[in-house]
Amino acid sequence: MLLEAIYHQSKSHYAYAYNPTTLHIRVRTKRNDMDNVYLIHGDKYKFQPDYINTTKMKKFASDTLFDYYHAEVKPPYRRFAYCFRFESGDEVMHYNEVGFQEEGFDSKEGIGMLDSPSGMFEFPFLNPIDVNTPPEWVKDAIFYQIFPERFGNGDPSLNPTNVEPWSEDVDPTPQNFFGGDLQGVIDHLDYLVELGINAIYFTPIFEATTNHKYDTIDYLKVDPHFGDNALAKKMVDEAHKRGIKIMLDAVFNHSGFFFPPFQDVLKHGEKSKYTDWFHLREFPVKTEPVPNYDAFAFVSHMPKLNTEHPEVKAYLLEVARYWIEDIGADGWRLDVANEVDHQFWREFRQVVKKANPEAYILGEVWHNSMPWLQGDQFDAVMNYPVTNSILEFFCKGSIDAQQFMGRLDQMQIAYPKQVNEVAFNLLDSHDTPRLLTIAGNDKNRMKLAATFQLTYMGSPCIYYGDEIGMDGGQDPGCRKPMVWEENKQDKDLFTFYQQLISLRKEHRALRDGSFQFLSAETGQRYVAYERSDDKDRFLIILNSDEKEQVITLTGVKDGAFRDVVANERYQVSGGTLEVNVPALSSLILKDQ
Amino acid sequence: MLLEAIYHQSKSHYAYAYNPTTLHIRVRTKRNDMDNVYLIHGDKYKFQPDYINTTKMKKFASDTLFDYYHAEVKPPYRRFAYCFRFESGDEVMHYNEVGFQEEGFDSKEGIGMLDSPSGMFEFPFLNPIDVNTPPEWVKDAIFYQIFPERFGNGDPSLNPTNVEPWSEDVDPTPQNFFGGDLQGVIDHLDYLVELGINAIYFTPIFEATTNHKYDTIDYLKVDPHFGDNALAKKMVDEAHKRGIKIMLDAVFNHSGFFFPPFQDVLKHGEKSKYTDWFHLREFPVKTEPVPNYDAFAFVSHMPKLNTEHPEVKAYLLEVARYWIEDIGADGWRLDVANEVDHQFWREFRQVVKKANPEAYILGEVWHNSMPWLQGDQFDAVMNYPVTNSILEFFCKGSIDAQQFMGRLDQMQIAYPKQVNEVAFNLLDSHDTPRLLTIAGNDKNRMKLAATFQLTYMGSPCIYYGDEIGMDGGQDPGCRKPMVWEENKQDKDLFTFYQQLISLRKEHRALRDGSFQFLSAETGQRYVAYERSDDKDRFLIILNSDEKEQVITLTGVKDGAFRDVVANERYQVSGGTLEVNVPALSSLILKDQ
Repeated sequence: MLLEAIYHQSKSHYAYAYNPTTLHIRVRTKRNDMDNVYLIHGDKYKFQPDYINTTKMKKFASDTLFDYYHAEVKPPYRRFAYCFRFESGDEVMHYNEVGFQEEGFDSKEGIGMLDSPSGMFEFPFLNPIDVNTPPEWVKDAIFYQIFPERFGNGDPSLNPTNVEPWSEDVDPTPQNFFGGDLQGVIDHLDYLVELGINAIYFTPIFEATTNHKYDTIDYLKVDPHFGDNALAKKMVDEAHKRGIKIMLDAVFNHSGFFFPPFQDVLKHGEKSKYTDWFHLREFPVKTEPVPNYDAFAFVSHMPKLNTEHPEVKAYLLEVARYWIEDIGADGWRLDVANEVDHQFWREFRQVVKKANPEAYILGEVWHNSMPWLQGDQFDAVMNYPVTNSILEFFCKGSIDAQQFMGRLDQMQIAYPKQVNEVAFNLLDSHDTPRLLTIAGNDKNRMKLAATFQLTYMGSPCIYYGDEIGMDGGQDPGCRKPMVWEENKQDKDLFTFYQQLISLRKEHRALRDGSFQFLSAETGQRYVAYERSDDKDRFLIILNSDEKEQVITLTGVKDGAFRDVVANERYQVSGGTLEVNVPALSSLILKDQ
Repeated sequence: MLLEAIYHQSKSHYAYAYNPTTLHIRVRTKRNDMDNVYLIHGDKYKFQPDYINTTKMKKFASDTLFDYYHAEVKPPYRRFAYCFRFESGDEVMHYNEVGFQEEGFDSKEGIGMLDSPSGMFEFPFLNPIDVNTPPEWVKDAIFYQIFPERFGNGDPSLNPTNVEPWSEDVDPTPQNFFGGDLQGVIDHLDYLVELGINAIYFTPIFEATTNHKYDTIDYLKVDPHFGDNALAKKMVDEAHKRGIKIMLDAVFNHSGFFFPPFQDVLKHGEKSKYTDWFHLREFPVKTEPVPNYDAFAFVSHMPKLNTEHPEVKAYLLEVARYWIEDIGADGWRLDVANEVDHQFWREFRQVVKKANPEAYILGEVWHNSMPWLQGDQFDAVMNYPVTNSILEFFCKGSIDAQQFMGRLDQMQIAYPKQVNEVAFNLLDSHDTPRLLTIAGNDKNRMKLAATFQLTYMGSPCIYYGDEIGMDGGQDPGCRKPMVWEENKQDKDLFTFYQQLISLRKEHRALRDGSFQFLSAETGQRYVAYERSDDKDRFLIILNSDEKEQVITLTGVKDGAFRDVVANERYQVSGGTLEVNVPALSSLILKDQ
């Protein structure tokens, strides 16, 4: 038994409240080290032999080095003290906050407070207000990302000067404009309904100089090239009529160069009343050769906002409230969220959830995000580690099935379950090459990646145009205007997305049902997994290999299945299923 | 190299801001596994070969299974991306958020955002408001805990009826009263000055029925048997004149049975306007045989307050403000702090620090407390794991020197350094047997424990009367009235405490200087350690063995030392010091 591999931390992603009555407790061990793992638990004020319970823990995730065990408990008085018991061959070991010992812990050796146990791990009290409770609708959401300058031109009267013709043959540049606007989105809402979309993520729509609008001038005003606030309200209302939620992009880390307070600082220097709105290091304020103020990266036209300053905070919190409460948006995606102070996000959450308790707060964080996911800040984050794993396995072939499972399972242990249920699973965006391009223009690989995305937990997001076969490299290549001429759209791909989305919407098992790998072997390029709830059971096999594979799954619960595409019958018997899966293709089996 | 033992978590006690310009980065490895550990780091937007730095990490703590390495860095743009490099014999391994690889990470494989590195650990931005910055004065504080009903009777006119004679020969019971009051504290402030005390921690002083006052009736009123609010203000002012800070006890988890809102609920049941102030499970409200409402433990006369309710919150936050701002208290000790919701404590911190930015917020948490120590809730916690380790090694002899070091070092890695600098290091209290009693009435063992406490980092706290030799078992035995008759006081013990306190106050090295074990061997009952700053250097050897020990320390920096008690000279040469330390005694050497 490798003691050095065993890990638990109280009140963390290893021990959290899943809802106001349920705790999830997890523990890590060396891979394949344990025969049995038990959770020993009780009320901290009655941690006595007659009141202590033992719950067998279930192995729920594994990576290269470790296994992860899980148990769900409902403490009757919402207080919880616990330790673990490990069994491996003849070895038995107990583990609490103080350390390891072979014998169980003597619960009578109290610490002087009633019957409080000495040295146990504790979840001291399950207070509902501290539970991270993301909005329910996000579990059912199929997002579609719109870069508004490039989706639809519904009102040419708003076109910027020198607008380019709306054609994928005109190369997008960091500077040029194509004339997309909010009316263009309204005009195409029915197209999104046809695809099956029920939520839109917009990159910024507020007044700014660039085509991407990440350099805000006025956070309370729609960009004049996109329309006005009344049109934004109309767009939200029209979307809501069609069952589509709207998420906006909050760029609160930095303003644009032409944000009036920053212009005031440039003009008046030390005498400006806005000097504390930014992080200025010296006067006069200089943009060249490198800015002498904090900026996003080293980009002089994106000066970092001082979100600790009461006036800045008051301004941005009013922005946060206005678009949710007055315009009706359903969520905020937070740009560069990890560089803004936690205290700001805590107050932001209070304001947003007061305006709409069902609003979705999504942080852009590219690395481990647990510090923002403890219930006081974000509901979820953009799930780049999952993005990368899917792309590496299905599109690039740079990791094998076992590594793929390990990477995904690391994310299962990294966050509470309710966070993973609403994690934002994108495969590409305005910041990356397009999915088809990442897949080397191999449509089959693209479909495999999308099939996984749309049958995995979390909220999938499709980047505009992927569904009709648009390609494009790193920004600006990935920002071509949407192709609306039907003869230039890939109808096969559209139907593929439409059917998968429909399948996901019809079956809760594919959204927040349980997920379990059935096959993810070292050196293999295929995976199989089961998704199920109390109603449905799916077996999904994705072959990312260049060759047909004869795949034998064992340990599967018996039953009769049907291929949801070809409608052929399959039978699992004796726990075994053998299937032929052609190169670069998938098989989705549903129980009958 | 044991990969399973290697552990790091970004933005945790393994990676935190020590102050607004400094990060501390730590990593765990298997004990004695590594020759060298390096931190490889750079700005996340310039993570390129020419801009990446490598810093050798220092082993700063060890326990039975693990070594812990530490590095201090000052990122010029406050953004930080990093990974680790381990060297063990011929083996080299790199470690980032994605995992391990032998080669270094290719910094060019970005994730699509400027030059952001792929998969590095990140401290995305050092925002000052998020830094846990406890008040400076606490580092210099020597606390004295007063249980007000038992410290001094300065105004017999306030005596409860049936008050007992003020004598240690009368056994305290859970119910009886001795007549202690605030005037009694004022009368003895000069005694505390003589002892060297500069901070007092009071158990509750607010109106309540019991002698311990943990069953509050009115949080805004001094208990009539103790005095009134004006007298409390006078006491605070008199203490401040003498350089003594005052910390009060906030019992916000539960009220007392006679708290008027709870009485209202008992009387009016469902019709009471206070039903939401508590956690009632059914009506009518019953106290017997077990309360049908949430309580502290299962104690029916301490109903748990619903601190999520806006009215309860408003009331308690006004209490928090009043005693700090209007009465002048310098801090709050928070009773049963871990069972109150985090959101309440976040708002509590805002209110208290606004009233006095230098107020000390100390949580009563008996287990790992990191969830409360991230800068948004508490400054520190009552450091019971250190308490227990000191008592077990010096008083009970139940762990050896190596285990003692391991336990203390676990606390060094468990929290950020600034938290450990102001951790509340008590050895006993009104909730435990007295130190002398725990030490089996062996004054030498008691002195060893106190010597360690007063030469260790953190804020030591002395329980009233320990310094003059009072004994007593578990509550109520530990709550005898203070002995003021000089002929019954242990003067030797008083002088011992006085001298040690004086030594600590004179030398910053003994407060927040560096701490390093020089000897802590398996099977041994003695320890040696060095404490130093840029001014002073102390070598301290504590022999907890029943026999004299000839102790040889090696690897010590050479120098001349003097025993601070006997004034004898000692010389460290060739890195070696050999000393004879009699049974159960200590040697404190200071450099000359």
